[in-house]
Amino acid sequence: MTDIRHEGPERVTAFSDGVFAIAITLLVLPLTDAEIDPERVGESLQDLLPSILTFALSFAVIGRYWVVHHRLFEQIVRVDGGLLTLNLVYLFAIAFLPFPTSVLADNGSTAGTLLYALNLLAVGTISMVLWWYASTRGRLVRPEVTARDARVRLIHAAAPTVALLPSIPLAFVAPDAAKWSWLLIVPVSVLGDRMYPDDPR
Amino acid sequence: MTDIRHEGPERVTAFSDGVFAIAITLLVLPLTDAEIDPERVGESLQDLLPSILTFALSFAVIGRYWVVHHRLFEQIVRVDGGLLTLNLVYLFAIAFLPFPTSVLADNGSTAGTLLYALNLLAVGTISMVLWWYASTRGRLVRPEVTARDARVRLIHAAAPTVALLPSIPLAFVAPDAAKWSWLLIVPVSVLGDRMYPDDPR
Amino acid sequence: MTDIRHEGPERVTAFSDGVFAIAITLLVLPLTDAEIDPERVGESLQDLLPSILTFALSFAVIGRYWVVHHRLFEQIVRVDGGLLTLNLVYLFAIAFLPFPTSVLADNGSTAGTLLYALNLLAVGTISMVLWWYASTRGRLVRPEVTARDARVRLIHAAAPTVALLPSIPLAFVAPDAAKWSWLLIVPVSVLGDRMYPDDPR
Amino acid sequence: MTDIRHEGPERVTAFSDGVFAIAITLLVLPLTDAEIDPERVGESLQDLLPSILTFALSFAVIGRYWVVHHRLFEQIVRVDGGLLTLNLVYLFAIAFLPFPTSVLADNGSTAGTLLYALNLLAVGTISMVLWWYASTRGRLVRPEVTARDARVRLIHAAAPTVALLPSIPLAFVAPDAAKWSWLLIVPVSVLGDRMYPDDPR
Repeated sequence: MTDIRHEGPERVTAFSDGVFAIAITLLVLPLTDAEIDPERVGESLQDLLPSILTFALSFAVIGRYWVVHHRLFEQIVRVDGGLLTLNLVYLFAIAFLPFPTSVLADNGSTAGTLLYALNLLAVGTISMVLWWYASTRGRLVRPEVTARDARVRLIHAAAPTVALLPSIPLAFVAPDAAKWSWLLIVPVSVLGDRMYPDDPR
Repeated sequence: MTDIRHEGPERVTAFSDGVFAIAITLLVLPLTDAEIDPERVGESLQDLLPSILTFALSFAVIGRYWVVHHRLFEQIVRVDGGLLTLNLVYLFAIAFLPFPTSVLADNGSTAGTLLYALNLLAVGTISMVLWWYASTRGRLVRPEVTARDARVRLIHAAAPTVALLPSIPLAFVAPDAAKWSWLLIVPVSVLGDRMYPDDPR
Repeated sequence: MTDIRHEGPERVTAFSDGVFAIAITLLVLPLTDAEIDPERVGESLQDLLPSILTFALSFAVIGRYWVVHHRLFEQIVRVDGGLLTLNLVYLFAIAFLPFPTSVLADNGSTAGTLLYALNLLAVGTISMVLWWYASTRGRLVRPEVTARDARVRLIHAAAPTVALLPSIPLAFVAPDAAKWSWLLIVPVSVLGDRMYPDDPR
Repeated sequence: MTDIRHEGPERVTAFSDGVFAIAITLLVLPLTDAEIDPERVGESLQDLLPSILTFALSFAVIGRYWVVHHRLFEQIVRVDGGLLTLNLVYLFAIAFLPFPTSVLADNGSTAGTLLYALNLLAVGTISMVLWWYASTRGRLVRPEVTARDARVRLIHAAAPTVALLPSIPLAFVAPDAAKWSWLLIVPVSVLGDRMYPDDPR
């Protein structure tokens, strides 16, 4: 049986975008289920503020990971079975995020904070493995990607993960501070983007 | 590292369409959760009428913003990091809308109406910033877009936002009237479309 | 301002497919919320049978309408503001369907059956208006579409709507029979497809 | 009326991907609804472990079926009415999976296990029928697909189904063992992929 497939990663990125878009939009569901007391709408909204901020935080983090995923797949021109499986494991970690988000919205304890941090750690680690796998099998990435480019992008994919490491010890002493330290993911990862000076986006 | 990316905004619009499609379809969920008394289905449906109308209102408003987003991105041929971030902030405001919609469905008080109006105001303002950002960085939009075109489109993007401003003072005196005044967004924004006489759509 | 847009209906069909896919998949949510008694799982599943059948019925009907929408848009090569608005109204009727589906799953009374039938009637009527609008503005459809073709397709788009009309009087005397008469939509609409003898699909 | 349609299966695969992406992401919803006791978050998470594992299992299975669907449609270049209908029946079985998943998360009894196994059996059987239909109507698949290729792929599509057959008798004697035997689907189906030696993915 000869090789009769020539498709690139289009359907894989379309499916991934679907999972990202649904996971990011499902985050709002616990808010829409919240009870609003008609007598004191203003106060009820204030009570929901932690949930709203957790929603915003998760949206920023998932959105940022989508950008990173987007950038890795811009360099990938072919998908093999291993990459397909790694991408499904990655999407599992993304689709799982609404669960730690809802745990965290209800309480900011150590266990809830750790669960969320471990989920983000899994997303970050799998995206590094995914890029390492694709870039060391030369046929899967654009021919213009040099070994040096591949290393730079591996460090880039690692940036958000490094930014969340401090939150794991912090979760034991100050869960609230740990939670907000995740916002470091955004500037660290944007800084990573700046590593490509000639880049139009 | 040389510039090795040539992709346009296709994956960005596909992801945005996913978020729009999910947000607009999730609006129906509070209705599907509603209890229908089997003894008096007709009356139960009548009780749900405010929820149904709020769903229709939100669908019309999100649908209209989708058309505006669609039109802006027709002129955008390249996406940089800043535009990607602005678009994520925009999508956050869209994905948030099911929450004010469910608050409003339960009660038409001043606080609920203000929350919804402020969410729409955020959507409108971000879409103006997004277009201003893209059009002042000439490489991001089609070369045919003149400075005058860019200004006309900025006003166009502003139209739905202007149409909802009266609802903010109205929310304090007549929340119900404020709510229905949002429907102004549809004709004002359609009128904005008419500003392009030669336009096939 | 000259006409600088050349895009076809791709983003419109992608957005529509998103709404269809979400509406059709959300139908299962009332089932996943159902309580299953661990002592008698078999009996609990039997109690859920009417819900499961209503889910299957709605899936078949939405799926069939997706095929009809798909076929109409195969002939549409350009989208103007009016068509965009009509398509949003159409999608509103599709996104609304999970609500009558959940009412119907709970009880098969006259009011629930009528609500569902009226929703389907709206979907059918809007799809006829949509095709009539597109085909009478010649620039929006493929040049190969003759006036006769346009008429044949209008009748075709009407077929599922005609098939559901008997259910409206039936809902008053025998709601259950009315419900199952909707399955007529599938063969009548498939028969409509057969009107294109040379058609590869 | 002459044949005026030339489209391939792009919109069909996009719609299918949408249903897959939503079904796979909805699996997390029962988890986000779970009550977490703020006094004992760690223990609550431990109580949720069976639900979390069932979520992971279903994600792996749906993900694997997506890969199989993906591969079949790589060979399909044209879609007729029969294939469209078969694909909708297939998607029905996929969209249904969140229901057995939520039944199984609550209890691992014989009835729940059988329901899940029968759902997977339906998915597997329909994907075989779908491929058999497409490959025996030569115009629907790539001209390079020989009769031998078609047979090999039919066996390939059957592999996950064969892997789940042992779980049906097992469900009566050891429901837990039956449940975990479904993981056989992943290696058996990956092994099936290896049957194409020259294949880049």
